[in-house]
Amino acid sequence: MIRTSATRIYTAETIAIGSELLVGGRSDSNSLFIAEALAAIGIEVRFKTIVGDDQSDIAGVLMTACRRAGVVIMTGGLGPTMDDCTREAVASVTGFRLARRQEAFESMRARLAQWGRTPNRGQLRQALIPSRATVLPNPVGSAPGFALTWRNAHVIALPGVPGEMQAMMQESVIPFLADQLDRAKGERSRPITRLIFHTWGLPESDVNTKLQGLIQKRTPVALGLLASPTGVLVSLTTRAHRSTKEAVLLSLAEGVRTRLHEWICAEGQDTLEEVVGRLLRRQKLTVAVAESCTGGLIGYRLTQVPGSSAYVDRGALCYSNQAKTDMLGVPTRLIEQHGAVSREVAEAMAKGMRERACVSVALSVTGIAGPGGATETKPVGLVYIGLAGGGDDVMAKEFRFHGDRSVIRQRAAQAALDMLRRWLIVRGEA
Amino acid sequence: MIRTSATRIYTAETIAIGSELLVGGRSDSNSLFIAEALAAIGIEVRFKTIVGDDQSDIAGVLMTACRRAGVVIMTGGLGPTMDDCTREAVASVTGFRLARRQEAFESMRARLAQWGRTPNRGQLRQALIPSRATVLPNPVGSAPGFALTWRNAHVIALPGVPGEMQAMMQESVIPFLADQLDRAKGERSRPITRLIFHTWGLPESDVNTKLQGLIQKRTPVALGLLASPTGVLVSLTTRAHRSTKEAVLLSLAEGVRTRLHEWICAEGQDTLEEVVGRLLRRQKLTVAVAESCTGGLIGYRLTQVPGSSAYVDRGALCYSNQAKTDMLGVPTRLIEQHGAVSREVAEAMAKGMRERACVSVALSVTGIAGPGGATETKPVGLVYIGLAGGGDDVMAKEFRFHGDRSVIRQRAAQAALDMLRRWLIVRGEA
Repeated sequence: MIRTSATRIYTAETIAIGSELLVGGRSDSNSLFIAEALAAIGIEVRFKTIVGDDQSDIAGVLMTACRRAGVVIMTGGLGPTMDDCTREAVASVTGFRLARRQEAFESMRARLAQWGRTPNRGQLRQALIPSRATVLPNPVGSAPGFALTWRNAHVIALPGVPGEMQAMMQESVIPFLADQLDRAKGERSRPITRLIFHTWGLPESDVNTKLQGLIQKRTPVALGLLASPTGVLVSLTTRAHRSTKEAVLLSLAEGVRTRLHEWICAEGQDTLEEVVGRLLRRQKLTVAVAESCTGGLIGYRLTQVPGSSAYVDRGALCYSNQAKTDMLGVPTRLIEQHGAVSREVAEAMAKGMRERACVSVALSVTGIAGPGGATETKPVGLVYIGLAGGGDDVMAKEFRFHGDRSVIRQRAAQAALDMLRRWLIVRGEA
Repeated sequence: MIRTSATRIYTAETIAIGSELLVGGRSDSNSLFIAEALAAIGIEVRFKTIVGDDQSDIAGVLMTACRRAGVVIMTGGLGPTMDDCTREAVASVTGFRLARRQEAFESMRARLAQWGRTPNRGQLRQALIPSRATVLPNPVGSAPGFALTWRNAHVIALPGVPGEMQAMMQESVIPFLADQLDRAKGERSRPITRLIFHTWGLPESDVNTKLQGLIQKRTPVALGLLASPTGVLVSLTTRAHRSTKEAVLLSLAEGVRTRLHEWICAEGQDTLEEVVGRLLRRQKLTVAVAESCTGGLIGYRLTQVPGSSAYVDRGALCYSNQAKTDMLGVPTRLIEQHGAVSREVAEAMAKGMRERACVSVALSVTGIAGPGGATETKPVGLVYIGLAGGGDDVMAKEFRFHGDRSVIRQRAAQAALDMLRRWLIVRGEA
């Protein structure tokens, strides 16, 4: 996406190793961490590859990576178990033979001793390191990593466990690569700068239309869009000089903000729940949530933020009608008259929660996440979100979401948090 | 991992396209869906590649994929926006020129008309299809996909939106590939069979030790292990003949069950919340949860299962001490005496929830997820999980989890659901 000089060290590839990553229903999140850490020192991950625990497949992938990237970071396959074969694959590609390395063995033994254990046969294999490779100590777990140079590419092998990989990236890999960059250029390279805008409430093609013509040809800034159940992410990326950044990037960011003002709910690394948390904190308010179809997701997201106990008081997952009456005082008659999924019940839930919890503001959600539960007049995806801010300040909005059960729940939680965000902004300005 | 005959069609590679997938903090989950759908017809995804919205990078990746795989499934980059360039990359690699295809244009126009819209300039580009390619209709969205054969590889391009990709895989791609397999072999190939066991409570190296020697050399079954915050996943994979499967795979599965009996909490595509849901349903029981540090995650997971309203009555997210007293009747004195994070409060929370909700069983969690909140005697990661099943059947267990805030919350939710599962099994056997 961003073209740089031919210097190979600025292009990286990550290789995640593990058959479970191919078919096991799990996504590889390590490479995203690595991409961010490398971007901060000016190295761009342009390729990510995932391959199973197969020595010859790993070897083939490593050869391809060394052709197209100057920095190759492999994660996984360094463990003690029978299917771990990254060491062997690297040795076969490079011709650097495996041998037990004393420093790797000692640090592993010391680590296991802390846990009151001695190395078993599998763990002993972890001290096998290709000749000419540098051992990378593992400050968290037992498996050491290693770094070597082959055909003008820096090849780095790290464990797949996120905590171990992250610690080793920070303590060993980034300093090592920064040093290599120094040698290559005599100065630090220009870091990649990336501005992110999270939008909610506008379809991707409309976001695109609104941004049409924003970036002139030849401007060294790339625009990216990505749609997901929780909205469309917009990014501006550049590796330009500091002066260009100030002149161009900041003005483009203002352009994005102006054109998408209504829909931007968070920027940068911020999440919507962090934005909401800061607004609550700044206005010294407390919040409670009453959830039906979202099943606890809003509470979970709000409390994912460290320190959220300062403003989150409580939540009610009132799945049954009885729970809505018991926990929030929603009148049985109201539910009978309008149905549990109705504007009236959403308002009563929010109001009931606010009064019972004695909080500043309460959110409520009631809807049909599917696949069952639809009626002739109330389809799957129909959701009412309520908000009570005290006195007459009670409202509820109707939404019709598309998608499966999980997507509808995610969209409903996002819409609820965004409704709270908008309410907090208006209140803060008043 | 599994070696097959040289027939290229049995080896697949997925290519996910989108710069946001490289750096945007989002994982690519499409390829996991594709891997499962292909495995069911005997095609194994051996490589996954992720590449940005860069035409020449995509072209290079496509060439590599066509060298090592007979089936190449590309997702993303078919949208209407400026950064979508999959069409152009495929045309440049294959030499099949892009031209507007009438059937693609008509179906897109019909789809947009349903939504009361006409195609804009960007959307018109979506009807450009490489010559010699077959158009794959999109039954959900506006962007059509396409399939072509180049250098003995089947190249298939699909939109990146999960719902669209999934519908097109099911309706077009799988039937097409199954047909190709028929032609290639005159009979359907042998599907890949994969058995999965989800364990909880045993470290990966101990799982490995317990499974040592289970699989004899030359047995055509591969064993896989993957550790995550919610436990270690064990898999057995084979593409052997039906007779071998019955003889070998089932006996190995029994071996895994015997050796890991105590720790297997779910099998196959089942999740722990589905297992718990079935046990509750079978015993005609209802459940309520009282969550503090998990913030709603247990309720969210329980209600992720369609039809869970039959047994989930309610949940309380009692983050503040006041909420614990209000919502569950935990005596203020008890909290003052033992602290909110204590065995006594966990028991009182479960008991209070069970009585107030009039359910069969209640779960509770109170703990310190960090990073703040630790005291000299109560470290981050200390969690108490309580369960009340009626009368004197009240218990609470202490856990000490490692990891960051998010990992501790995930582990606590997993431990709570597993405690409920064990209780339900004992009760069912009584």
